[in-house]
Amino acid sequence: MDRLGTVAIIGVGLIGGSIGKAIRARKLADRVVGIGRDVSKLAEAVQWDVIDEGVTELELGVAKADVIVVCTPVTRIVDDVLSAAKYAPADVLITDAGSTKRRIVEALEDQPAGAACFVGAHPIAGSEKKGATYADAHLFDGRVCVLTPTKRTPEDRLERARKFWKTLGCRLIELDPSQHDEALALTSHLPHAVAAALAGSIPSNALPMAAGAYRDGTRVAGSDASLWTGIFRANRQELLGAVQAFQQTLDEFKSALTDNDEARLLSWWQCAKDRRAEFEPLNQRASSQD
Amino acid sequence: MDRLGTVAIIGVGLIGGSIGKAIRARKLADRVVGIGRDVSKLAEAVQWDVIDEGVTELELGVAKADVIVVCTPVTRIVDDVLSAAKYAPADVLITDAGSTKRRIVEALEDQPAGAACFVGAHPIAGSEKKGATYADAHLFDGRVCVLTPTKRTPEDRLERARKFWKTLGCRLIELDPSQHDEALALTSHLPHAVAAALAGSIPSNALPMAAGAYRDGTRVAGSDASLWTGIFRANRQELLGAVQAFQQTLDEFKSALTDNDEARLLSWWQCAKDRRAEFEPLNQRASSQD
Repeated sequence: MDRLGTVAIIGVGLIGGSIGKAIRARKLADRVVGIGRDVSKLAEAVQWDVIDEGVTELELGVAKADVIVVCTPVTRIVDDVLSAAKYAPADVLITDAGSTKRRIVEALEDQPAGAACFVGAHPIAGSEKKGATYADAHLFDGRVCVLTPTKRTPEDRLERARKFWKTLGCRLIELDPSQHDEALALTSHLPHAVAAALAGSIPSNALPMAAGAYRDGTRVAGSDASLWTGIFRANRQELLGAVQAFQQTLDEFKSALTDNDEARLLSWWQCAKDRRAEFEPLNQRASSQD
Repeated sequence: MDRLGTVAIIGVGLIGGSIGKAIRARKLADRVVGIGRDVSKLAEAVQWDVIDEGVTELELGVAKADVIVVCTPVTRIVDDVLSAAKYAPADVLITDAGSTKRRIVEALEDQPAGAACFVGAHPIAGSEKKGATYADAHLFDGRVCVLTPTKRTPEDRLERARKFWKTLGCRLIELDPSQHDEALALTSHLPHAVAAALAGSIPSNALPMAAGAYRDGTRVAGSDASLWTGIFRANRQELLGAVQAFQQTLDEFKSALTDNDEARLLSWWQCAKDRRAEFEPLNQRASSQD
């Protein structure tokens, strides 16, 4: 990939910060500009080699950008893309890192300014941690990034978006925005809701008797409340469907347990175990590149 | 603690093997005898420094034991303790590592041979891995071991059991067997059931889009089906109560999401997050001793 001139990152948190760090570590661009609202956090991000410079005014930050990556919460992405498109050079590529896609892509394609330069993206990586403090230049190594082009996505921008995310270390999958949202409702949004339901169900006085199954099963319940409320609401119908599928599976377990039916419990568990085993090679592939 | 003579471990899997390895690594006993049914697995355990010698005949293995640790599945513990008591020296201490306690303790206290020498124990450590291949001399470092003495437990055996589990690196908590089972239904059995329900609900074609939340949330679904079916059935009523509490919490989420109620979603998540945060210092305490 040809080295980029200026990359502007709007929202320098864990994801935006990790993108900045990856670009700087691999020298993929001349300059990484971080755009945020909190001056002291931007100053820290500069100090930690996450970005080259920080600005609070979006119009100044994007003025010379070749690529703009919008890494703000899903509730703000549409507005941020449109503001960025207004002040950026005409040939800019704007992409994002939002956990939901359908509404964002639809809203942006309704606006000529958005339709001209935007390619929806979702690098599937992250953690319950918040902020550029935890930025990691290798966060995306071997991880899947879903691109969600539509018939209206300009081919040249799509090609540039593919190169951009690939150079960050991602493996690309291209899906329709709705397919993305259905899949992620199951693989990410549901596991987050379930982790929080588990954390919320276990009383404090039992916690000294908790170990690995609790620790891992509730880890992501430590994630930011407003970030996840935004994601859940942006993918409400799909997530409700996923919750229902999960409730059904759990009801099968409950019914087998109520009946004290050893054979049904065994086969229920074995199905789950077999399905989980299908994930291992995919996970290995990602981890081997860490 | 005075060095022990012979420790016999019935069931040399992940837990039994890790106990053997810990004893041998710290030279806590003159000899560790592993008792199992599979000769080739016992031979491997000797090769890997997990046990000093392996025998398939329980009556021979326990003949000179000072301490016997029963590490078989919960469905077999009562029988194994009674057989061991029959062939062991009169002053033996028998303890176990079963994930449930009430029925086991009740059944053993009904028998004079069991009542005379048994102290129920549950070292809360483990993993989805199976077998002595994964034995780890540090598995118990800093982890909680729950002892479940009752009024009928002989005081001298209890004192020896405390010393034994402490020397392995455990922090001790003493609970009534029923209290143990209620707590573990919430902190361990429920998280296992939920992990398997999650793994069973997510279709294969979505798995390439799964990442950390899925990986950690479903990890223990890789555990052994028959082992966990046994645990679930041994703690059926308590687990059904825990599943119901969990379903209620998830229903609150579903209802808030159906209503698209931002404030309720935010406070629901924040409650779960705050509860999860209470676990962190407990987890740190265990991890710092890893």
